[in-house]
Amino acid sequence: MSQLINPQALKGFRDSLPSMEIPKKQLIARLEKVFESFGFVPIDTPALEYTEVLLGKGGGETEKQIYRFQDHGGRDVALRFDLTVPFARFMAAHRAELPLPFKRYHINKVWRGENTQRGRYREFTQCDFDTVGVDCPEADWEILQVMATSLEALEIGEFTIRLSHRGIFNRFLTRHGVQDRSVEILRTVDKLAKIGREEVSRLLTEILAQAPSPQLIATAILDFITAQGDYLEVLTAMETAAGGEAEDTLRLKALWKFIQAAGWQHRFVLDPSITRGLDYYTGVVYETFLTDLPAIGSVCSGGRYNDLASLYTKERLPGVGSSVGLDRLLAALEELERVKPLRGLTKVLVMNQKDELSTTYQTVATSLRKAGIATEVFLECKKLPPQFKYAESKDIPYVLFLKDEGGFQLKNIVTGEVMNPSTPEEAASLIK
Amino acid sequence: MSQLINPQALKGFRDSLPSMEIPKKQLIARLEKVFESFGFVPIDTPALEYTEVLLGKGGGETEKQIYRFQDHGGRDVALRFDLTVPFARFMAAHRAELPLPFKRYHINKVWRGENTQRGRYREFTQCDFDTVGVDCPEADWEILQVMATSLEALEIGEFTIRLSHRGIFNRFLTRHGVQDRSVEILRTVDKLAKIGREEVSRLLTEILAQAPSPQLIATAILDFITAQGDYLEVLTAMETAAGGEAEDTLRLKALWKFIQAAGWQHRFVLDPSITRGLDYYTGVVYETFLTDLPAIGSVCSGGRYNDLASLYTKERLPGVGSSVGLDRLLAALEELERVKPLRGLTKVLVMNQKDELSTTYQTVATSLRKAGIATEVFLECKKLPPQFKYAESKDIPYVLFLKDEGGFQLKNIVTGEVMNPSTPEEAASLIK
Repeated sequence: MSQLINPQALKGFRDSLPSMEIPKKQLIARLEKVFESFGFVPIDTPALEYTEVLLGKGGGETEKQIYRFQDHGGRDVALRFDLTVPFARFMAAHRAELPLPFKRYHINKVWRGENTQRGRYREFTQCDFDTVGVDCPEADWEILQVMATSLEALEIGEFTIRLSHRGIFNRFLTRHGVQDRSVEILRTVDKLAKIGREEVSRLLTEILAQAPSPQLIATAILDFITAQGDYLEVLTAMETAAGGEAEDTLRLKALWKFIQAAGWQHRFVLDPSITRGLDYYTGVVYETFLTDLPAIGSVCSGGRYNDLASLYTKERLPGVGSSVGLDRLLAALEELERVKPLRGLTKVLVMNQKDELSTTYQTVATSLRKAGIATEVFLECKKLPPQFKYAESKDIPYVLFLKDEGGFQLKNIVTGEVMNPSTPEEAASLIK
Repeated sequence: MSQLINPQALKGFRDSLPSMEIPKKQLIARLEKVFESFGFVPIDTPALEYTEVLLGKGGGETEKQIYRFQDHGGRDVALRFDLTVPFARFMAAHRAELPLPFKRYHINKVWRGENTQRGRYREFTQCDFDTVGVDCPEADWEILQVMATSLEALEIGEFTIRLSHRGIFNRFLTRHGVQDRSVEILRTVDKLAKIGREEVSRLLTEILAQAPSPQLIATAILDFITAQGDYLEVLTAMETAAGGEAEDTLRLKALWKFIQAAGWQHRFVLDPSITRGLDYYTGVVYETFLTDLPAIGSVCSGGRYNDLASLYTKERLPGVGSSVGLDRLLAALEELERVKPLRGLTKVLVMNQKDELSTTYQTVATSLRKAGIATEVFLECKKLPPQFKYAESKDIPYVLFLKDEGGFQLKNIVTGEVMNPSTPEEAASLIK
């Protein structure tokens, strides 16, 4: 006998069993329904791309993590590590076929050969939605609205969308003459919630060592990012700190009007400490936190950028988008015990007791399915215990017996309730 | 200015634009609904696996086509080239967590670095469903029923499922003393529809050169695989040729009972020339052809195997399954003009004409969405022509105007019909 091969999944990867895949698919289906209700359409791109397309001018961490190799034609190729870079290439490649504004969503796997400590995997699903080709308050608002509507649809409890504007922050930094260090400053500010005020202050002073008065500017930055008050109070503080009204503050005022009209004042917080690390963003930026589970971090984040595809085309493509943290949301749903249980796929198991009734069982099951009830016939004529065990293992709530005297017995195996429908259609109504 | 990067997709790969992705997702959604109505549950496996897991004892064509490389830890890894091998590994790995019978479906991408002539791509989607752990007529019938019900759900016109049984064919070959050449014979027979009777006869004679009377056996094989008549007539001919009744012919008789009870006699043809090339199959085998487009080949094929995961476990896992040819079905739906048009995602565009009404447009759109109507507000306040153009480009059937005097004008831009609902809810009912 030949040696068996170890059936393990590749290190850093995992299989998705039905207990994981069913809730994930249900989550995605709900999100897609919301995206489509706002006119976002799906696209897909290849898992493999030319490495040059993905890495562009090369990028430190990314280059270390990317799965890169030579294909059969000797091409330098790599697995995508996010959906943003492929989307930029996609827009540049298909610009002529895509009337603007183009509103797309894209849900698919990405791969990163990163350290797998702390329950992170090397393959995970991203879920992005973006509007490209316009720069107006309506487009920003629509993305925010899709975010809020999606979270409502998931029934995951209350949440807060914290937003800010990179333009205002940049004006503020320019006013203090430290705009040349903006990337490091942004990345430090981004860590406020994680490392605290003291540590941010220390790091900022370090970054600003060459500035005339590092301590003073660090304090000003800290004051700016920790402004307190309601939306309009914080906005006034930001506006003053940045040197007065401009397009950026007008944009936040326009968004406030939309927020009020939607009656969503409790859901939106203007928070100048939200910066998003990436230098990519130029306008509004936002993160979303669950009220019942703030510690898991942002479950939906994004912002506005003014040039999506500059690596591939001279055409300037402004856009705004957001990314849903599917794995975090699934973890949250599980922790909050809000995952829809397996109960919900197959609704009824037709018990298989007599060989001579085999075709009848099938006909009954077909009638139930036609009435909209997901139905299984137990696949072998066996004693009852294994059939009940099967129903339990798949969380099937009902079992159906054909009675010798005609008609049916329908049993809810969760509650023990017994009913006696005379037809499959009647059984279907009772199950519904 | 730095050099632009060419935004092309990798050679042999392609982007999926909304015009392709929407019908594909609709097709998959319909299939999943049927699978789940029969109690099949979804799983997923990693795109990357240990090469040893995928190639097993090594396999000619596959080894040449597989995308294989070393990961960051120096592991020999490869992209999956089908969903069958990962499923076998999955069953062996998770056997303890999966009560039998286990009924799963799996829809995802696979990769093959094959020649890309004739419109074939190196990345494509497979759609498999299998029942593992039982060997009984009910399980075979259930897979056939899922196939027929899926095709009915796609509204793709009439179709025929042609089936046979590898066991009967093997008995027949054994009777003629040529069972040791069965693999080559099966592969030759499999080509009957493509290369014709003459050529099959010539090839068989060649394969059987060492047998006592190659010509005679070749003729017997040709007679066997071209037996004419209805299901039971062909079954009788096969039975006689194979040496009488056995478990294999009893299985085909049991299936005939199920076919009759379902009233599907017109959909099933017993066709002994169906063999499926792979040595993997041991029981029933089948292929499915569209009446209106027979030339595109089988759109759904599979069969019964008696040992799914022998490479990875000593436990014998019999099963039966089928695979839907998604790309062929999509091509067929397009050719038969049965693809649901884009019309169907966004149902109405709220025309954006006055800046001061911007929040009102949003409120109206929210009401329409709450009434179940996918709605967009045009994202910038512009003149009407670009708004109509946008509606046309996305095949949005309705546009909605807010009237100065209150109320709405709803226009069907396909028929030109104009209606005057007084509320968003009334507009929603009119659109429905």
